[in-house]
Amino acid sequence: MSKAQAIGIDIGGTNLRVSLVSRSGEIIRKIKEPSSKDVVNTLFHSIESLMSDEVAGIGIGVAGLVDSANGRIFISPNLPVIEGIPIASMINDRFSVPVFLENDANTAAIGEKWIGAGKDFANFFLFTLGTGIGGGIIHNRKLLGVPAEIGHMTIEANGEKCPCGNSGCLESYASARAILSKAISALEKGRESPLKNCYGGNFYKLTTEDIYRFSLDGDSLARETLRDAGRYLGIGIANIINLMWPEAIILTGGLAGAWSIYVQEAIKEASRRAFRELFETVKIIPSSLIDDAGIIGAAGLVFEEAE
Amino acid sequence: MSKAQAIGIDIGGTNLRVSLVSRSGEIIRKIKEPSSKDVVNTLFHSIESLMSDEVAGIGIGVAGLVDSANGRIFISPNLPVIEGIPIASMINDRFSVPVFLENDANTAAIGEKWIGAGKDFANFFLFTLGTGIGGGIIHNRKLLGVPAEIGHMTIEANGEKCPCGNSGCLESYASARAILSKAISALEKGRESPLKNCYGGNFYKLTTEDIYRFSLDGDSLARETLRDAGRYLGIGIANIINLMWPEAIILTGGLAGAWSIYVQEAIKEASRRAFRELFETVKIIPSSLIDDAGIIGAAGLVFEEAE
Repeated sequence: MSKAQAIGIDIGGTNLRVSLVSRSGEIIRKIKEPSSKDVVNTLFHSIESLMSDEVAGIGIGVAGLVDSANGRIFISPNLPVIEGIPIASMINDRFSVPVFLENDANTAAIGEKWIGAGKDFANFFLFTLGTGIGGGIIHNRKLLGVPAEIGHMTIEANGEKCPCGNSGCLESYASARAILSKAISALEKGRESPLKNCYGGNFYKLTTEDIYRFSLDGDSLARETLRDAGRYLGIGIANIINLMWPEAIILTGGLAGAWSIYVQEAIKEASRRAFRELFETVKIIPSSLIDDAGIIGAAGLVFEEAE
Repeated sequence: MSKAQAIGIDIGGTNLRVSLVSRSGEIIRKIKEPSSKDVVNTLFHSIESLMSDEVAGIGIGVAGLVDSANGRIFISPNLPVIEGIPIASMINDRFSVPVFLENDANTAAIGEKWIGAGKDFANFFLFTLGTGIGGGIIHNRKLLGVPAEIGHMTIEANGEKCPCGNSGCLESYASARAILSKAISALEKGRESPLKNCYGGNFYKLTTEDIYRFSLDGDSLARETLRDAGRYLGIGIANIINLMWPEAIILTGGLAGAWSIYVQEAIKEASRRAFRELFETVKIIPSSLIDDAGIIGAAGLVFEEAE
């Protein structure tokens, strides 16, 4: 009989999340640890505490550029200490179960397909909208095993320099990092806004949640910043519609919460840019698993690949 | 026993090409007719002259936006007379064999996969570089049945208006139409170049072949125009590498002939923009079937889908 559980891991920037997941996608146990320099040891300990004969394998989603065929991490911008480490084979050596490595937006897409907002779609594109912007593609009900690095798609040929080396990346205009940097730079230049008085005047502590909250109260700087970013997201969405014509675009990550301004603006912009005949048929919807999509999908990868 | 032949059709802007193709991809007979207003009748006559009991089906590649699942053409910019016509079912009604409709860049990709430059790759992206720019994706050795409208990917957020309704489309910067319009507009403004004296001074007759020829002779306007366009093509290539990480990018269409300047510049630009770890592994190569990729691939679609 096939084993009933899998371990799903999400290696993000600040946290390491390790979970035991059932064959029906339920989270049985969940461990959250801060990502440290000693990430490999922390990982080993967490896995050990969830390991049993019932575990069919281990799936890992990593924020960054992943070589899934070889189980290596090319680039992990928020956790460079794990770059180049043959993490999949190290874990396999230690625990003797199949180990699968994927980009975290790809595992989130698997999660949404398995038991989330993407369940009823054969083809969708998932955007993760956070500090950075990632993508995952489900095609014919399966993960299309490609990087889907939509955050590093050039949408301004002569645009801003991105840490990835390119310039004009979508991420430099539509991510949480971009939104905060634009709002803060306006405040530094003396732009009047109640955002200025947050955190006792230390507006460097602003979050995108603050900006969204103030935008709902009508603050013009907050509204402008979110709308500008939303328009750029709309370009990314239109590019995906013209390229892939998915049945749905699923939006997840912190910024998807800013639906009424940022996402609405993105939808409007995409409708102006994509082929009308294609755009009309595409559903643009929020994710349903939110933060758990990554760990659930990482476990889902095991059930999908190991059998 | 399965039938040994298929009819492959390419409905381009100016010509209608209908061919009888063997199961090994050889062209047995080929008919070329000008596309007229009466394209449907011309099509029927051509098919009739090639039809026999040996024909397994008919595959059609159309320049434009195609709804292949429903056998309809959404948009055919160069031949609007066939837009909206249920062309596949009309042909099927008349000839009683399976009929498959695809975008012409998709059929070209199938052709290159079947017996061309893509034969040995499981995953590649084909760019058709002509008056417009199209795309076709082979994934896991099969056509990924998506529009792949790379020519209408926004690469300049506030860029030039495109006839498709969007602005900043790749096609407006990197296609033959864009190259000619830029060279001509420079000549109109009085820019000195031997291109001015072509066609007895009627430089509106210039072709991209002329521009390439003069660029090889060192003309600075010709070189500049091709290099600028090539840089934009490089953005499109980098976007595809970051998104799809194919094993190869195959370039076809008239402009692929301008390899030593236009394409070389594109490769350089893509190397600066795509993730280095991904770019390094991607082969960027010319097509081998050239003009016949479309009709061969359209026939290939029949053998792939009908059985």
